[in-house]
Amino acid sequence: MTQGAAWGVVLAAGAAADRTSHEVSPTLAPSDSTKVLGRSVRPYGSRSRFETAARGQVPSPTGESSASLTPLQHLYGIITPSELHFERHHAGVPEIDPARHRLLIHGLVRRRLVLTLAEIQRLPSVSRVHMIECSGNSSTEWARPTMPDVEGTHGMTSCSEWTGVLLATILGDLGVERGAQWVVAEGADGAAMTRSLPIEKCLDDVILAYGQNGEALRPEQGYPLRLMVPGWEGSTHVKWLRRLKLVAEPYQTREETSKYTDLMSDGTARQFTFVMEAKSVITYPSAGLRLPGQGVYEIAGLAWSGRGYVRRVEVSTDGGRTWRDARLQEPIHRIAHTRFRLPWTWDGRECTLQSRCTDDTGYVQPSIADLARIRGVHSLNHLNAIQSWKVTAPGVVLNVRG
Amino acid sequence: MTQGAAWGVVLAAGAAADRTSHEVSPTLAPSDSTKVLGRSVRPYGSRSRFETAARGQVPSPTGESSASLTPLQHLYGIITPSELHFERHHAGVPEIDPARHRLLIHGLVRRRLVLTLAEIQRLPSVSRVHMIECSGNSSTEWARPTMPDVEGTHGMTSCSEWTGVLLATILGDLGVERGAQWVVAEGADGAAMTRSLPIEKCLDDVILAYGQNGEALRPEQGYPLRLMVPGWEGSTHVKWLRRLKLVAEPYQTREETSKYTDLMSDGTARQFTFVMEAKSVITYPSAGLRLPGQGVYEIAGLAWSGRGYVRRVEVSTDGGRTWRDARLQEPIHRIAHTRFRLPWTWDGRECTLQSRCTDDTGYVQPSIADLARIRGVHSLNHLNAIQSWKVTAPGVVLNVRG
Repeated sequence: MTQGAAWGVVLAAGAAADRTSHEVSPTLAPSDSTKVLGRSVRPYGSRSRFETAARGQVPSPTGESSASLTPLQHLYGIITPSELHFERHHAGVPEIDPARHRLLIHGLVRRRLVLTLAEIQRLPSVSRVHMIECSGNSSTEWARPTMPDVEGTHGMTSCSEWTGVLLATILGDLGVERGAQWVVAEGADGAAMTRSLPIEKCLDDVILAYGQNGEALRPEQGYPLRLMVPGWEGSTHVKWLRRLKLVAEPYQTREETSKYTDLMSDGTARQFTFVMEAKSVITYPSAGLRLPGQGVYEIAGLAWSGRGYVRRVEVSTDGGRTWRDARLQEPIHRIAHTRFRLPWTWDGRECTLQSRCTDDTGYVQPSIADLARIRGVHSLNHLNAIQSWKVTAPGVVLNVRG
Repeated sequence: MTQGAAWGVVLAAGAAADRTSHEVSPTLAPSDSTKVLGRSVRPYGSRSRFETAARGQVPSPTGESSASLTPLQHLYGIITPSELHFERHHAGVPEIDPARHRLLIHGLVRRRLVLTLAEIQRLPSVSRVHMIECSGNSSTEWARPTMPDVEGTHGMTSCSEWTGVLLATILGDLGVERGAQWVVAEGADGAAMTRSLPIEKCLDDVILAYGQNGEALRPEQGYPLRLMVPGWEGSTHVKWLRRLKLVAEPYQTREETSKYTDLMSDGTARQFTFVMEAKSVITYPSAGLRLPGQGVYEIAGLAWSGRGYVRRVEVSTDGGRTWRDARLQEPIHRIAHTRFRLPWTWDGRECTLQSRCTDDTGYVQPSIADLARIRGVHSLNHLNAIQSWKVTAPGVVLNVRG
């Protein structure tokens, strides 16, 4: 067993990197848990008090944060626990009584409609595993490496099993009128968050989602109803959804004019850049973590593409000179986080780790230099370049430019 | 759009079954959520206070319950929220400090080993979606229909994305000695829960799991370390795992002699009946729920097989006289809950709903009559028969014998 033999170093040395988020301080847990009667059942569980992974808060000039980050460095597999799904809201998380919530569908439809949640839940449903990435994910990294960890550089992407009704099911029934080219979606939050979406996408794979990872949406994810717009920037997945209006042209709302556009080097801005292109990042080892010494490790990370399936992830441990194919976790879901893993022997010397994703359209994740050549470095949005982590000789991992 | 047209009844009538668990009583939620600043970000999320789905507690003669049930009637998709994963423990849920937890592997191995959690987490890992079903799931239903809802009849099965190290990776490295035919697994709970497992299974797909749905195992699921034994009865997935001993013969522990055996009609008992055979159940509509009136509905449910993939689920709405193929949610995972769905028009008259699963070995879920003919009705374990729900004329759904 060749692979097994390689790991003997770990098993023999007893030296290991602590990648979990649990505390190692002295505790009051029983010294012998077999001598104590444990606690009884609980109606609704919670994690161990030794687990402390948390969403980092993005500072705000006003003091009231409107964004928090998924601690990707502490997570396993592809499902993001709902408790740790990243947050982004424009007027806080509203509290909505589901029994009183309504969705209005109107505009260029043959029949306008007001739906309760119970009515929506009676319709034919789908459950699909999809990622959501904020277009501003990695936005601090355009000009130079800034954030101290992968949560900071990439924590505005998360992945859940979403359940709901295909918007096409409802629109098909109501009858879309000629001339309906866009759908304006509006949230019931204090910002009345509003985005315009092309009708083609709405008739394709957009979901009116009410379920997340088996239960109801979490409040910060749009409870009780949100749009799930597979592969498109997070702000289009309008949360606390209360209105869909079919219209002839986009509404040019604040969120698609002054916000969520991409400033180019010539001073113009790209508008309606919906799709999140292929991207990947190594989550272990990643900046802020420390390797305890030379030896064998498993490099692990996440890849995704807003256009479809991840087909390949290559990993370099020499700053991009050579690449090796990582193993992809199956089954691979369309437009979802895809976990990749690759065994690696660290010789204890300084080196740079990178990952590069290819999706099923053939698109290859670019270097930051190649991306900046086209996009400039003044945009906030849509940075999908290769991320570099430097492993220094003492084992400390740093965020660097590749 | 034929399918769309059929649902016009729902969309027009405004009458819908409320299948969620939220409360509909008057609340203090703002009457217009757009006029109020919502709350800020949180380090670790929680569900809306309007959501009340809970694990039902299985009563115990001693007053201290050791089992709770997943409320399948309120869940979506295939992932069971970790908070609602069913519980079963023999001496309560122990509290274990992960920094002090150790796994001893010894017996017929060339080299015995004590591993910390950090060491285990450094090894090559896998994440796989698998169900776990207690062999006692449905045990109340052998002789006659007993429980009032699907949580009661089928709530001891749940499904998660588990992350950990294949046991084969470690055993291959340590070197299994000739004569090692079984592995005795022991938990660190007050029961020191102990089961013997054949070495072939341990060298196949058994996982030393430390992750569940993206984060650490939940305490009641074995935090910080458990066995995941795909497709085998729940009690073999030893939780709070502290010891694996490779031995020549099974240890004939209490849990494999007086418990977790199958009493047959002739008074003998079958032993080591590990595999959970193919099974399915309709979760909506199911007993305890009420249909608001005739019209179109989506029948939905879960199917699984401990032997592999679910290949087909048929649904009958006439007590088994005729069957229609349900749509299966893709991708289908091996040894995992598989969601099935089928549109159905209820004419308002009494009828009986059933589902029947076929796995990729060709095995077909039996009727309770066929199962009882072979197994008798005195066993507690391994009831995988077809479940019948009667929809009465007022729309009330009951647990009946098919």
